[in-house]
Amino acid sequence: MLPFEFRNPFYAQRVRDSFALQGIMHHMGAQLGLVAPGTVDIEIGWAQELTQQHGFLHAGVVSTALDSACGYAAFTLMASDAEVLTIEFKINLLAPAQGERFRMEGRVLKPGRTITFCEGRAYALRGGDEKLIATMGCTLMAVTGRTDVGS
Amino acid sequence: MLPFEFRNPFYAQRVRDSFALQGIMHHMGAQLGLVAPGTVDIEIGWAQELTQQHGFLHAGVVSTALDSACGYAAFTLMASDAEVLTIEFKINLLAPAQGERFRMEGRVLKPGRTITFCEGRAYALRGGDEKLIATMGCTLMAVTGRTDVGS
Amino acid sequence: MLPFEFRNPFYAQRVRDSFALQGIMHHMGAQLGLVAPGTVDIEIGWAQELTQQHGFLHAGVVSTALDSACGYAAFTLMASDAEVLTIEFKINLLAPAQGERFRMEGRVLKPGRTITFCEGRAYALRGGDEKLIATMGCTLMAVTGRTDVGS
Amino acid sequence: MLPFEFRNPFYAQRVRDSFALQGIMHHMGAQLGLVAPGTVDIEIGWAQELTQQHGFLHAGVVSTALDSACGYAAFTLMASDAEVLTIEFKINLLAPAQGERFRMEGRVLKPGRTITFCEGRAYALRGGDEKLIATMGCTLMAVTGRTDVGS
Repeated sequence: MLPFEFRNPFYAQRVRDSFALQGIMHHMGAQLGLVAPGTVDIEIGWAQELTQQHGFLHAGVVSTALDSACGYAAFTLMASDAEVLTIEFKINLLAPAQGERFRMEGRVLKPGRTITFCEGRAYALRGGDEKLIATMGCTLMAVTGRTDVGS
Repeated sequence: MLPFEFRNPFYAQRVRDSFALQGIMHHMGAQLGLVAPGTVDIEIGWAQELTQQHGFLHAGVVSTALDSACGYAAFTLMASDAEVLTIEFKINLLAPAQGERFRMEGRVLKPGRTITFCEGRAYALRGGDEKLIATMGCTLMAVTGRTDVGS
Repeated sequence: MLPFEFRNPFYAQRVRDSFALQGIMHHMGAQLGLVAPGTVDIEIGWAQELTQQHGFLHAGVVSTALDSACGYAAFTLMASDAEVLTIEFKINLLAPAQGERFRMEGRVLKPGRTITFCEGRAYALRGGDEKLIATMGCTLMAVTGRTDVGS
Repeated sequence: MLPFEFRNPFYAQRVRDSFALQGIMHHMGAQLGLVAPGTVDIEIGWAQELTQQHGFLHAGVVSTALDSACGYAAFTLMASDAEVLTIEFKINLLAPAQGERFRMEGRVLKPGRTITFCEGRAYALRGGDEKLIATMGCTLMAVTGRTDVGS
């Protein structure tokens, strides 16, 4: 983890600005929820255009929102000149993604100057209930000085 | 792998029918390519609405198409009364998803009556070049007799 | 999760008996710790014969103990005629495995009649400190009626 | 991938020297096989002390040898002052590890200055047959200037 003095005090605004540039988040109707150091939530509502063949949210849609939640959770702890790229993630699908809304939580488990590891959890919300439907492990890299990934 | 006589001779039509029910495939502009036993390709064109913050295809979009390619590759070898569900997948992102079009290949490596393991590869196409950008390992389960995932 | 009446009331003894049959656990000097429903810990001491090239515990040794911890955590919730097999696992190595002793924790996150998903955590113990060094996601399958994996 | 002139012309000797320092390889009776740029094989014979409860090779033993094979495959392409550490790996177990001997193959799929991605395959050898029993995806990092992982 970067010492506090090198981190970006405007991390929340930086996350919001970057999120606004992700065309897919808008296309899926996803919204930023909680943004705090090492912590980002993304919410998404059920829609026919996000489904797999049985009418559940497609596992890829769950993955997309979890990946962004984990990436931005890592981004909150990165230096102000760093960009974030996903190296890899793995998702386990614990239950069909049935619900009215879904909350994807990204949390930093181990921050680092170059490599950050995050865990994600996806919950389906139905009526007043919520149910864990997926869990993700995700490795992110801080990238600086690459013109193709600059802001 | 199921003995030949229990498999579905209409596997290709079954894949096409199921693919047509995946709202997210239509929403992403994805198209079925090659469909053969243990083999399914999905193609997708670059679009602003599929991007992450640097204008590359979002890792989640690559995952979504790879997951469907792997799932349908497994589906081609399943019995005619079985549905397919993804248990887990892992994706390694080898290069930024920059390109005009993308081809996601799903291939069965180890079929089974209950559990099938597939590998996926994603390629970015630019000009006449193609470049490997991601690799997936994906575990699928054949499900029968569950009314919530029935066709 | 199996209804209580179908589960094995002698789960702890069953775990201990099976653990004693794992030649590699003895060969690594690993010991069973906590055994409770959905919960198994395994402990292991540092030894030269378990190292990688820098003198840390080899990532594979951490994986071996975590895989057994997750497998037996799943086994505690399975029927008395079921055997447990690992389908897949993924490990993220968060810090070098430096320590005097190591504790690997396996926990069931989502039990199921056929498929169970577990999470594992590995901790290095040095002096009075403990440090998280690795995290695992692991999918297990309950197998019945196969003579090659019978007890 | 490093330009040729920065790579280590003595890569094979360097792999052999490092392998000899891995206490666990000796403890498991593992031997280096093929060593070529981006390519390392490790062989291991069945032994009671490497088993899980049904007498198969423990999944962790397969993982340990595959992780070393992938790590050394990456190491062959790294600079002469770099050390290699595993960031993460995922293994899918396709069949029980039954056999007289086992060959674990590590192959570089995407080399990089900092991050290298490898794929591994494990084969069981029985009589004249060989059978694919596991597949691994593995991310390695080149580390320089860290005293704790220096040679």
